[in-house]
Amino acid sequence: MMLFTKRLLVFSLAILLFGAIPQDTNAQQTLNDVKKERGLTDTDVLAATKTFMPRGGRDEYFGFVGTGNSGTMAVYGIPSMRIYKYVGVFSPEPWQGYGFDDESTLMLKKGSLDNRLYKYGDMRYPALAETNGKYNGMYLFYSDGANSRIALLGLDDFETKQVLMHPLFVNAYPGVAVTENTEYVIQTSQYPTPWDGMAADVNADFDSKFKSGVTFWKFVDTEDEAGTGHHIGRMIKEESFTLELPPYSLDFFDAGRMGSYGYVVGLASKGGKNYVYIVDFKTLSTLSTKPVNDFAVVSLKDALAANAVAMIELPTAAKSVKVNPDGKYFITAADESFVFDFAKVKDAFTNKTYTGNADGGIPVIDNAAVKHGSIKLGNGVMDVVFEYRPGIVYSSAFNDKKVIRWNYETMKIEDELALSFKPGQLMVPQGLSAEPHSNYLTVVDKEGLYDNLAEIGPVRPSYQHLIDISSDQMSDIYTMSIPQANLYGSVAVLRTTIKPIIRYPLGTNTRTGEISIYKTVAGQEKIEREGNRVHIFGTMIRSHITPEIVEVNEGDIVTFHLTNLERAEDETHGFTIDTYGKHGSFEPGKTASLTFTADRPGVFPYYCTEFCSALHLEMEGILLIKPKGYKGKKGAVEIVLTDAELQGYKKNYEDKLEVIAATQDVINSVVTFLKENNYQDYPYVEALVVDAFDQLGQAASSKEKHEKYAAEGKWKDAFLWAEQYWQYQVKTADVGLRAKKLLEEKISE
Amino acid sequence: MMLFTKRLLVFSLAILLFGAIPQDTNAQQTLNDVKKERGLTDTDVLAATKTFMPRGGRDEYFGFVGTGNSGTMAVYGIPSMRIYKYVGVFSPEPWQGYGFDDESTLMLKKGSLDNRLYKYGDMRYPALAETNGKYNGMYLFYSDGANSRIALLGLDDFETKQVLMHPLFVNAYPGVAVTENTEYVIQTSQYPTPWDGMAADVNADFDSKFKSGVTFWKFVDTEDEAGTGHHIGRMIKEESFTLELPPYSLDFFDAGRMGSYGYVVGLASKGGKNYVYIVDFKTLSTLSTKPVNDFAVVSLKDALAANAVAMIELPTAAKSVKVNPDGKYFITAADESFVFDFAKVKDAFTNKTYTGNADGGIPVIDNAAVKHGSIKLGNGVMDVVFEYRPGIVYSSAFNDKKVIRWNYETMKIEDELALSFKPGQLMVPQGLSAEPHSNYLTVVDKEGLYDNLAEIGPVRPSYQHLIDISSDQMSDIYTMSIPQANLYGSVAVLRTTIKPIIRYPLGTNTRTGEISIYKTVAGQEKIEREGNRVHIFGTMIRSHITPEIVEVNEGDIVTFHLTNLERAEDETHGFTIDTYGKHGSFEPGKTASLTFTADRPGVFPYYCTEFCSALHLEMEGILLIKPKGYKGKKGAVEIVLTDAELQGYKKNYEDKLEVIAATQDVINSVVTFLKENNYQDYPYVEALVVDAFDQLGQAASSKEKHEKYAAEGKWKDAFLWAEQYWQYQVKTADVGLRAKKLLEEKISE
Repeated sequence: MMLFTKRLLVFSLAILLFGAIPQDTNAQQTLNDVKKERGLTDTDVLAATKTFMPRGGRDEYFGFVGTGNSGTMAVYGIPSMRIYKYVGVFSPEPWQGYGFDDESTLMLKKGSLDNRLYKYGDMRYPALAETNGKYNGMYLFYSDGANSRIALLGLDDFETKQVLMHPLFVNAYPGVAVTENTEYVIQTSQYPTPWDGMAADVNADFDSKFKSGVTFWKFVDTEDEAGTGHHIGRMIKEESFTLELPPYSLDFFDAGRMGSYGYVVGLASKGGKNYVYIVDFKTLSTLSTKPVNDFAVVSLKDALAANAVAMIELPTAAKSVKVNPDGKYFITAADESFVFDFAKVKDAFTNKTYTGNADGGIPVIDNAAVKHGSIKLGNGVMDVVFEYRPGIVYSSAFNDKKVIRWNYETMKIEDELALSFKPGQLMVPQGLSAEPHSNYLTVVDKEGLYDNLAEIGPVRPSYQHLIDISSDQMSDIYTMSIPQANLYGSVAVLRTTIKPIIRYPLGTNTRTGEISIYKTVAGQEKIEREGNRVHIFGTMIRSHITPEIVEVNEGDIVTFHLTNLERAEDETHGFTIDTYGKHGSFEPGKTASLTFTADRPGVFPYYCTEFCSALHLEMEGILLIKPKGYKGKKGAVEIVLTDAELQGYKKNYEDKLEVIAATQDVINSVVTFLKENNYQDYPYVEALVVDAFDQLGQAASSKEKHEKYAAEGKWKDAFLWAEQYWQYQVKTADVGLRAKKLLEEKISE
Repeated sequence: MMLFTKRLLVFSLAILLFGAIPQDTNAQQTLNDVKKERGLTDTDVLAATKTFMPRGGRDEYFGFVGTGNSGTMAVYGIPSMRIYKYVGVFSPEPWQGYGFDDESTLMLKKGSLDNRLYKYGDMRYPALAETNGKYNGMYLFYSDGANSRIALLGLDDFETKQVLMHPLFVNAYPGVAVTENTEYVIQTSQYPTPWDGMAADVNADFDSKFKSGVTFWKFVDTEDEAGTGHHIGRMIKEESFTLELPPYSLDFFDAGRMGSYGYVVGLASKGGKNYVYIVDFKTLSTLSTKPVNDFAVVSLKDALAANAVAMIELPTAAKSVKVNPDGKYFITAADESFVFDFAKVKDAFTNKTYTGNADGGIPVIDNAAVKHGSIKLGNGVMDVVFEYRPGIVYSSAFNDKKVIRWNYETMKIEDELALSFKPGQLMVPQGLSAEPHSNYLTVVDKEGLYDNLAEIGPVRPSYQHLIDISSDQMSDIYTMSIPQANLYGSVAVLRTTIKPIIRYPLGTNTRTGEISIYKTVAGQEKIEREGNRVHIFGTMIRSHITPEIVEVNEGDIVTFHLTNLERAEDETHGFTIDTYGKHGSFEPGKTASLTFTADRPGVFPYYCTEFCSALHLEMEGILLIKPKGYKGKKGAVEIVLTDAELQGYKKNYEDKLEVIAATQDVINSVVTFLKENNYQDYPYVEALVVDAFDQLGQAASSKEKHEKYAAEGKWKDAFLWAEQYWQYQVKTADVGLRAKKLLEEKISE
């Protein structure tokens, strides 16, 4: 009450002195009303202000989070914590036709061991591609824990480009890590199993027939042949290899960088003993291999002979191990966490100062001899992540409901943040690279129980919290809900590091990065038939799918090969055929194919499924599937109009011509401004202007058509094409106005 | 600058008077720092404060939004705009095993016309079930535009319960509407097609063979036989019927309520003419039907003879038509929007004051005779929605980038909100019921272009804006991103109207609502074989899948029938088998089945895929698929421990016993508090306490086991079971503490 009185007094004084309440006080009062009404504290308002994204604002980071068992990857913004996309990776995803169109289906089948389309995946820990240990924003890798697959995603278009099934492992939970120039993508088994696909006697043969392993997938980045500068990196199975290990259960791992480049460190356990394994893959890569199931394997014997693998024993199991930003240390996440010194480990390898052998004859390095220090952090320590400040790390203690900020150089706890939930995996943007940032920390809440966040029946979403770590006092500022997820580790990269494209070279098969042999350009649409096999080479552009009528026979095998001719930003068209359960997504420039057997006779509209303009609903056609024995005439839907109807369309047409003239005035004024202000000096503005003119270029043929139909008195067609022309105009004006706005900003900079 | 100086002066005065800046000023300064750093205005801060959800806060509403072409429904909170779930409806959804487990797959196949599993759906407009015209929070209905299906979802568990494919239509975009007591769920065709599955001559036969129709799906709500009070309403295909209409293209429609109960109004067009059709389904339901494709059809002839259908011509095409909250009017969304008076329409029917016939001989009611008024609202008017205040509606004008608040009684515009984007569909919570609210309005932004919101490659998410309409001045307060969506209409209901369950009766097949014949209880797990058909009757409970080892032969057809024995809140277990691509989600009490052919021999771990406790990773088993001709011994993974290992586990066990004792102290103090404060007087608290004791009940057998193994000197097993016991304790303590907190709140009320 005292405070309230003081504030009243201040306000009264203000009124006294200036005759009115200062402007911000009014806003403050409204803010107070909302606070009171919604039961918010000052801390809440501050948190809200730190995460709210205003119109036109951009997130600082893109986060990529493993969804566990939905098989798709969630892309979200930090700090707004809004989810922007679920990318189909290991499971089919209908929205983008992933696992529905022929190209993505072929990609998935080619990556499987038996040409099968796997429809489920358990998304585990991702890794971002690196150059000199720093995220390059070009690619992302993911492992499928359940089906032992590895995936490559392109971050120019946020699509999956490659999925490979492991020829030896049957599970691969511990995720992926990359070497500092993405020379290799590393993946390991978790539970040991036999590698020969035989059912070994799991009692007697465990040590002899069950194996674990560490795989080095060779990655090669190349540019596309078209010379557009578009990168189409791929993992090369034939140049990859696996290190054979005895049947240890393997867990998380990380790759060294800079001084520790060439090493992988990871967690291993067997018979109640816990270890960090260290693998020298620079040496391994020089050894001879033998093929197992057509995959190159470095035998344990050879690896031991080459002194390329060793173990450090841990007193208790750790939950994770990670290499610090400059590559000098690796640190475990455990109730008692260990910091190991890579320099000392290298010395131990060089001098072979081993203290004995672990199972399978792997030499053991004395823990005490290579450790920098150890520290008791709490109960149920789950994870560890780095930030920008030297020596600073964060660990989560599940049972203690807290995050600990500590220093791995001084081995001292600096701060703790008490949480209202049990924390799981942690993530700092850029945190697994050589240049971590230090403003945000995300913390997984696997339970979402403690505040009963969403009462949506027996199964709930996962949650992730955003913690502000930019000051000495950590604060929990946002609770993000992530549907369809059992959360694991994640990564985030500075948004501006990623260079997204807005269109593909015309006719691109986006899964291979090459120009599709089915690319079709305007005017060259055609239907080809050979026996009961029908290929339709079609195009999509506002607001037409060409051809607009397709006739096939019951039992035909039919493929629609469609190319989206658009060059404009976000002008995606979707495609489906009623009752045939197929769906494709055609981003600007993309060519994709949909194949099905025409086994239900009848008349089936097909249409664009992604809003593309106000005439979106007109973007349709008709598939006529003639039943066996059908004798009807060929023909198109053509409805004869009455005179009254014709006059109605004539009036509509004339009205539209007036609107077109008015819109053209707007376009002209924008064009004048752009030219007078040298738009071509600003690349992004110029790209928009190219878009705008491209739109007008598209419009020309619509103008020809509406004028032709008007001359013939076909007023309905004339009106529809005039409407189409106007749609192009509107798009031109929109893009032009955005270019103008941007140009104005650039000029004033 | 002037303002700044004034404020400085005020602060200076405050310091002068009180010796320190008042407390709130400090917070204000920090807030100002954040505002400055993030470039936010006072308006932004206010918007942030209106939508931020603090820890423990609940959203006022649940929103349900059609995702267009992903085939799943997004559930989100208002005003936080966080997405809580994507519910698999028309497409398979791996996270919950929808279209993966046998039960949901059977449900989907039974609903199809040809026993096929359709894997894609185009989610269109939903409708919430009603009682007396008000949302009852029990069910939701959805249409699949592309594959002409209709779906029923239960809102007690947010799962899909029924999907039916239409026997006549091949597309069904215009969505669904329900009658005021959910007697019927109404669905219509959009593009006319032949109903007999034959390919008619689309030129000559359009008027004679192509049809459109309005279908009335009979809905019956019943309780489950187990008498748990659980409702299992279903659509009854055999009691449903379709009104045959001439080949009009049909668009959105709505059902009358109260005074206009018994009518459906919708948009129709043909040959360039635009209409509202009015159907009297009370009369239709008394007419005789003829089966077409085994579905009851009321012929157009009979409907006309019974005076049960008529048309009102519109001067231009409308985008929507909706019935107002009290059922007196229906209102179109069009550049010139019309308000029609139901009383006058009924008079026209009664007196047959028709002014002629539309195509197909449907009588036409004079527009002027039945309209209450019309109003020019703008360009590209897309939608219309109601709110609480009498007469108030909102319309969106796509081309004008604005939302218009107007009054359909006085026919006057009250206010306009200029937007930075082109608005699409609108939604007010409770807005399509007899009791709309009036605080929020959501507006679809199909383009997301104007502020370049997420640069994630060629295809972007959809956006939806939250508009605060609670005061005279409307304001745009949040931009929500919705991944995998091409947005259409949506609905929202007061959160507290929905009564979600947290568990099922043990052994529930959640798709039928009945107890599964495969229900398995603890101790009755078994494996049954008949030839090459193997049925595993298993159970799941922290942290065991029983049986833990399964042996089958290559080529066997294998089904895991699993029952989740948990009763605790959010204790879902998932299940997958490595490399077999199957996934199931088992919420507490659920029984579901996964069938596959064991065609890859080897050793395949199976495991729980949903985090369930700190011992989640231990919840696994092994499937041994013996290759043809395999002669090995039967056996389990059993690793012999060394003495050192045994002593290590012994120490772990003894440490754990101490932790268990400490945890028990916490539990005891909570129990004392609960008992002393009559927890049983508060139903929700009591439910939590039941949960807590249930957890302790589960724990008993773990205690027996760890003590037994300790007595036998089997220290690893003793430790694991002690750990398990402690997990139950922790859960008990957690639930107990939540019950205590709630009880304290209740007592202080």
